[in-house]
Amino acid sequence: MLSSSENIEKLISELTNLPGVGKKSAGRLAYHIANVPKEKIESLVQAIKNVSENIKRCKVCYTLSDGDICNICSSDNRNKKQIMVVENERDLLAYESVGEYKGVYHVLGGALSPLTGVGPNELKIRELMARLSGDIEEVILATNSSVEGETTATYLAKLIKPLNIKVTRIASGVPVGGDIENIDEATLLTAFNGRRTL
Amino acid sequence: MLSSSENIEKLISELTNLPGVGKKSAGRLAYHIANVPKEKIESLVQAIKNVSENIKRCKVCYTLSDGDICNICSSDNRNKKQIMVVENERDLLAYESVGEYKGVYHVLGGALSPLTGVGPNELKIRELMARLSGDIEEVILATNSSVEGETTATYLAKLIKPLNIKVTRIASGVPVGGDIENIDEATLLTAFNGRRTL
Repeated sequence: MLSSSENIEKLISELTNLPGVGKKSAGRLAYHIANVPKEKIESLVQAIKNVSENIKRCKVCYTLSDGDICNICSSDNRNKKQIMVVENERDLLAYESVGEYKGVYHVLGGALSPLTGVGPNELKIRELMARLSGDIEEVILATNSSVEGETTATYLAKLIKPLNIKVTRIASGVPVGGDIENIDEATLLTAFNGRRTL
Repeated sequence: MLSSSENIEKLISELTNLPGVGKKSAGRLAYHIANVPKEKIESLVQAIKNVSENIKRCKVCYTLSDGDICNICSSDNRNKKQIMVVENERDLLAYESVGEYKGVYHVLGGALSPLTGVGPNELKIRELMARLSGDIEEVILATNSSVEGETTATYLAKLIKPLNIKVTRIASGVPVGGDIENIDEATLLTAFNGRRTL
């Protein structure tokens, strides 16, 4: 395609490298960037650079952080005795958006997946176990409800239970507002097996 | 929301200002930017800056351009006697993606919309008429199939016809692959009225 501008073409091709950005949205973004005042784009560019150049991993929970210790681990309002184990920082953000959870997190950096070569040493499991030597009341396993996520949760539960720490797993079943007729069989079976007495 | 990093939070808020980027996609993009090697992000940043700081409007067709005249208007492979009139540069890109059209363009910068105060003087209509004093064989009106787009096409057709230049309008009707049962009444009526003898 011969576009009217090579700069635009280059930008569109860079933007399509981003996750979830197709050719159509890249075009829309590129034209937006071309049409909006420079100052607005400068502040976007600065925000991108700040993240790309300065972000670190928190030395406690291994999520993304501005300093050595992230805002959550260094906050006085969070219960350090309750640790929610998540696969990655996007899952952490999802739970933070809910705003209900007041404990801290531990970011594994993925889930166990022997087929793709992800074993316990590829995840921050040793680091999690080191944290558990402190005064911890509950570990909440909030890995995904996929085969890998379930395997990881089972593995961690086996490791942690001997330490006499309460280990919980987030509930799996029919999503809130979910229409039973449209839900897959595995989810229905999980919901049935996980039924509670009312 | 107290995120783990203020830099990430700032970036997410900048990204949600972009068209078509919601909170979820902004989060995914921000974490991608944090996790990808700096060099990749530098080339993205450079591409954004090049577009934001250096892009101009082509002095012939008013689309976005690196120099005074865009790549399309300065190409020897394009038929300068055929001008396709589009509302904006995204519509131009859409037709360029098809790759079939070998003429040049004229970007109006919008469509006539008396209610929102867009009259002929707000669009590049005077500039289009000036181009038509040259050796032009056909003007293709490719404004949107909306009320504003149709109004603009009708207005331009009236202006151009007295110059003895062929004026055409792109076809409107059932989209290719469209399912008649799901198509709105206005489109069905347009398709019926625009029926061709086979």
